[in-house]
Amino acid sequence: MERTYAANIKESMESIFLVKGWIHKIHDLGKITFIQLRDKTGILQLVVDKNNKDSLRLETCIEVVGEKVLNKKAPMGVELLVKEMKVLGKTYYDTLPFEINNQKVTALLEKQLDYRSISLRRQELRAIFKVQEEIVEAFRTYLKERRFSEIHSPKIIASSTEGGSEMFTVNYFERRAFLAQSPQFYKQMMVGAGFERVFEIGAAYRAELHNTWRHLNEYISLDVEMGFIKDENDLMDLEEGFIKYLFNHLMKYCSEELEMYGINFPDIIKIPRLPLSEVQSILLEKFDKKSPAGNIDAEGEIVLSKYIKETYESDFVFLTKYPVAKRPMYAMPDYEDPDMTKSFDLIYKGLEITTGGQRIHDYEMLKANIIKFGLVPENFKFYLDSFKYGMPPHGGFAIGLERLTMKILGLSNIREATLLPRDMNRLEP
Amino acid sequence: MERTYAANIKESMESIFLVKGWIHKIHDLGKITFIQLRDKTGILQLVVDKNNKDSLRLETCIEVVGEKVLNKKAPMGVELLVKEMKVLGKTYYDTLPFEINNQKVTALLEKQLDYRSISLRRQELRAIFKVQEEIVEAFRTYLKERRFSEIHSPKIIASSTEGGSEMFTVNYFERRAFLAQSPQFYKQMMVGAGFERVFEIGAAYRAELHNTWRHLNEYISLDVEMGFIKDENDLMDLEEGFIKYLFNHLMKYCSEELEMYGINFPDIIKIPRLPLSEVQSILLEKFDKKSPAGNIDAEGEIVLSKYIKETYESDFVFLTKYPVAKRPMYAMPDYEDPDMTKSFDLIYKGLEITTGGQRIHDYEMLKANIIKFGLVPENFKFYLDSFKYGMPPHGGFAIGLERLTMKILGLSNIREATLLPRDMNRLEP
Repeated sequence: MERTYAANIKESMESIFLVKGWIHKIHDLGKITFIQLRDKTGILQLVVDKNNKDSLRLETCIEVVGEKVLNKKAPMGVELLVKEMKVLGKTYYDTLPFEINNQKVTALLEKQLDYRSISLRRQELRAIFKVQEEIVEAFRTYLKERRFSEIHSPKIIASSTEGGSEMFTVNYFERRAFLAQSPQFYKQMMVGAGFERVFEIGAAYRAELHNTWRHLNEYISLDVEMGFIKDENDLMDLEEGFIKYLFNHLMKYCSEELEMYGINFPDIIKIPRLPLSEVQSILLEKFDKKSPAGNIDAEGEIVLSKYIKETYESDFVFLTKYPVAKRPMYAMPDYEDPDMTKSFDLIYKGLEITTGGQRIHDYEMLKANIIKFGLVPENFKFYLDSFKYGMPPHGGFAIGLERLTMKILGLSNIREATLLPRDMNRLEP
Repeated sequence: MERTYAANIKESMESIFLVKGWIHKIHDLGKITFIQLRDKTGILQLVVDKNNKDSLRLETCIEVVGEKVLNKKAPMGVELLVKEMKVLGKTYYDTLPFEINNQKVTALLEKQLDYRSISLRRQELRAIFKVQEEIVEAFRTYLKERRFSEIHSPKIIASSTEGGSEMFTVNYFERRAFLAQSPQFYKQMMVGAGFERVFEIGAAYRAELHNTWRHLNEYISLDVEMGFIKDENDLMDLEEGFIKYLFNHLMKYCSEELEMYGINFPDIIKIPRLPLSEVQSILLEKFDKKSPAGNIDAEGEIVLSKYIKETYESDFVFLTKYPVAKRPMYAMPDYEDPDMTKSFDLIYKGLEITTGGQRIHDYEMLKANIIKFGLVPENFKFYLDSFKYGMPPHGGFAIGLERLTMKILGLSNIREATLLPRDMNRLEP
């Protein structure tokens, strides 16, 4: 007999089913016992008679053959009267590290992360990663429909891409290498190699000494690079289009998961684009909030997002025209104001989720800029040389996957949106 | 005016087009000049009059407005009479590192890799990565249709998964960490966490001291793990199904690329499953080829594949029942012969592309096996502990993406199937 998933029992025309899963809850009434069986798709009630209930413990893996009976009170509206039961995976715990079948999560986040393969047995925690998977799917589909090619670039690199601090070092045979902070150089090079439009879904590494609710030392970066653009507005158009596409995609494929978290998306996505200097003035004048030179800080992002929501009815805001001094050497200067760049950040509900911009595509201009930044062109040889052979105007952006997931679901710590987080203290599991 | 891609000009009903790309070839006839313009989709002939051809160099990025004229001799069957031309990206080279527009690749592979963003400008080299992208797409689609969830596990890990040699070390703040050889432990844990069926498309790292045509130190692993299996045959069925699905997918989405490489797929995929010991006997008796204990060597893989092709008309063969001593501590022993495991390799055209098998899912059995292997359970604590809470019978496999790409296209070196390879000598570009 083929296995049926819990969620498919009710709709099926069959009467006898083979189901598999974990024992989620046991309710012993003496003569009969109700078992809630949990599988990937949901929770199904089983009715077990006396003879069958020996040695049943929570979280044991079982398979069951049973007959379907309608029961409005059961979680799925049906239950199975168990005919046969077999244990597939025994349990060996004294006590569970925390309850999995209570109404709300009570364990502290750190403990949940210590026992990740147990805490994720809760449907609503696995739901976070269903949403994350569909974010990735939407990103990929949206870009493929627009002729972007998916690439995989190496994460072990010979030299630092953007100056050098905050990188993890790797012992690579007899040499010292680094873990890539981003695929920046490679995605640009692949635009120039004739792919024209590329994206990558891959790990990025930051050796930052921050252990906060919004930092990870290893995370998934959704990277985009696009050739033959007019200017940075093409990139913001692309990203705004993605956000619209994403919300529609999630409403279609994650309606249950969004409901668990009480999430509704706005009907209209229209993201204001404000120059950084204007935003700094707003923060200072309206909220008496000073900003660091050439940026806004984490608190500023939160204050700004509230203001944007009230003023523009938008959860998002693009900050544009960051100063040259605060952007990498490859950022394209603004033609109208050469102290500024054609770059941008995207703030979503008080958190930066994207940095992007147009890049310099002219070899001489890039070389001069490297020198102007006090860097040595020779150290960027393979990257710089690739600009000698005809590079189209181009630019791109990167979205932090876990940050986007966190903000979409209204989570309070980025670790909740990470299957197995890595931070300054956590290397396990 | 919207840009049109070279491949779409002919079918379009318009007469005036905006096109963008690189100057692939210049054929100067004095009064007029033919330019071949190369973009992501193909090569389009432009006809330029005298006044427009100043300072044109190969590989310059240009945009052109022109009128469509039918010309049977032109690469796309049409050409554009150029009305306006604008340079988008200048060139700064003295000479190109190698020709891009000649009939055949003449540059040595190492030089092609040194100038990767130039060598990939050849359509037939970019075609390799189109095929690779569609392999990944087929893998993902095939598994998602079967309720597998895509996961992203960390690549920085605290301890070695399978004994410890051949791992790259990372300096992780004050600690020593490693780059993951595979997501093995994590994919198993995520099966146990209730995802039941997972896959991952991610980097894997091997610090092997091999610099051969079939080794990379960083590669993309297509990983699968599946819960509630009966035995390892479920896994071989799944992989055999994938191969069929993949070949159909590639015929549908990569017909041009397969044609470039003269590739035809067999109509029927039926993969023989032979115990390792039987294969070793065949090699010895029929080909006088000795094998190392508990395995076959690289030459044996080649000899065997020829034999299988002749005998079974299959490019693939599963080798089954590897001995316990040659497999990791988590490999499930064979019930009939406890010196053997329920594991397998998949050999494709003379090269191993997959290792897989059923895993031990019982906590006490796994713990005993770790000890039997001379390892210390405490060193595998987070992994081992996750087996205390009910693990279903499960197993999985991993396919090396670059190896599969190489063998599908009949390439002779794995580096050709890698965008930016990493080997003992190569960390750049």
